[in-house]
Amino acid sequence: MSKNIFLKLQYDGTNYNGWQTQNNAVAIQDVVENALSSLLNSDIELIGCSRTDAGVHALGYCCSFKAETPIPPENIFLALNSLLPDDIRAVYSCEKPENFHARYSVKSKTYIYKFYSSLIENPLLRNSEWNVRSELDLGKMQDACRGLIGTHDFTSFMAMGSYPSTTVRTIFDAGVRETAPGHYELFVTGDGFLYNMVRIIAGTIAACGLGKIDSASVPEIIESKDRKKAGATAPAHGLYLFEVNY
Amino acid sequence: MSKNIFLKLQYDGTNYNGWQTQNNAVAIQDVVENALSSLLNSDIELIGCSRTDAGVHALGYCCSFKAETPIPPENIFLALNSLLPDDIRAVYSCEKPENFHARYSVKSKTYIYKFYSSLIENPLLRNSEWNVRSELDLGKMQDACRGLIGTHDFTSFMAMGSYPSTTVRTIFDAGVRETAPGHYELFVTGDGFLYNMVRIIAGTIAACGLGKIDSASVPEIIESKDRKKAGATAPAHGLYLFEVNY
Repeated sequence: MSKNIFLKLQYDGTNYNGWQTQNNAVAIQDVVENALSSLLNSDIELIGCSRTDAGVHALGYCCSFKAETPIPPENIFLALNSLLPDDIRAVYSCEKPENFHARYSVKSKTYIYKFYSSLIENPLLRNSEWNVRSELDLGKMQDACRGLIGTHDFTSFMAMGSYPSTTVRTIFDAGVRETAPGHYELFVTGDGFLYNMVRIIAGTIAACGLGKIDSASVPEIIESKDRKKAGATAPAHGLYLFEVNY
Repeated sequence: MSKNIFLKLQYDGTNYNGWQTQNNAVAIQDVVENALSSLLNSDIELIGCSRTDAGVHALGYCCSFKAETPIPPENIFLALNSLLPDDIRAVYSCEKPENFHARYSVKSKTYIYKFYSSLIENPLLRNSEWNVRSELDLGKMQDACRGLIGTHDFTSFMAMGSYPSTTVRTIFDAGVRETAPGHYELFVTGDGFLYNMVRIIAGTIAACGLGKIDSASVPEIIESKDRKKAGATAPAHGLYLFEVNY
């Protein structure tokens, strides 16, 4: 009988065109589906918790699939790793109830965004942290994060040209911490995110840290529903899907 | 008139066959010499502070060259970056006295070695930190480091088949710190290092952290002058040339 199987992944998104299968580009979904199909000797279709853009990384990407399996579900992730390239790792798997859905059952997701200030980009971080050239003020960035929390229409923080059914989202928590001198990690937990929303939040928070946007003005930026009032879209390579809560 | 110019580099060694020019493989030295030769419109030959193995990284690699230059020496690093690939960055340059030599003038070098314990390798760290599968004991690793400090014959910590004029080296300082839960950074400062010496030290310190080698036995391992008594050679991708002192 077919089981509903949950799978958690980590990946370095540098060499992929995002999570979702598309024409003429290698997607993480394709690579994992092919490996699972080989492992379980049947055609596997994955349901992912969200799309991630090209270059975006994951420390806790969640997906699920239905399959008959001779391998105990809690061992599938270990067997799968021998069939995956070394920039994608499976870190957990288990059986879930039939009604579990990797996308619709999501209660919240946490993204982190890594950035640092340095006049010259560190070549070892070129695919994993955004290099902001000037010094950043941690207090200002923390203040700005507080303005994001709550249920708001986040049109100002959505890529122009996208048309979701609603632009209202709830941010449960957001903050910035300094992980090493001059290196920062922004975290944002919400019930869902509009297209490019976390990257626009990261660009806005960095602009507050640089003093280019007043950190007290975040509520006004939200209120304006004007994409031009928020900061630039920060590059994909600093963004990580960190955790999904079901 | 020709000037003696000092240049400091950072690089991600993943895609190179080490620092030094060799047949049939791209070396970091070649790439930097070609970029400098274009910039200064003459054939530049670099003197490096040391060889680094394939896959080894640098946060403060030092080298020097003699050239006539219309560009002020302290601005060369900035101009050079536009001609270098993004996995190599020049971070500093200046003029030095005629008798300065990037290799012979070295007083000490500091290497760091990054490693972490995790059952499954983090794909984002696959080229930058060594994954040790079991838990590591920080106290035991710190104890083991203390046994390395001093002037000793380090034959036990040298790759077999290498024949330097002397196997005596001085370690000025060595230690391990936990940079994040389960993530460790070993640092070793010495007047010079034998072939693979830091990687064998890292393998030995990790073996002490795992309880496979008694951390109090490091002086005996040195005394034995027997490579087989020390730990395995840790992989190149966890090693960083951190700082050179002149």
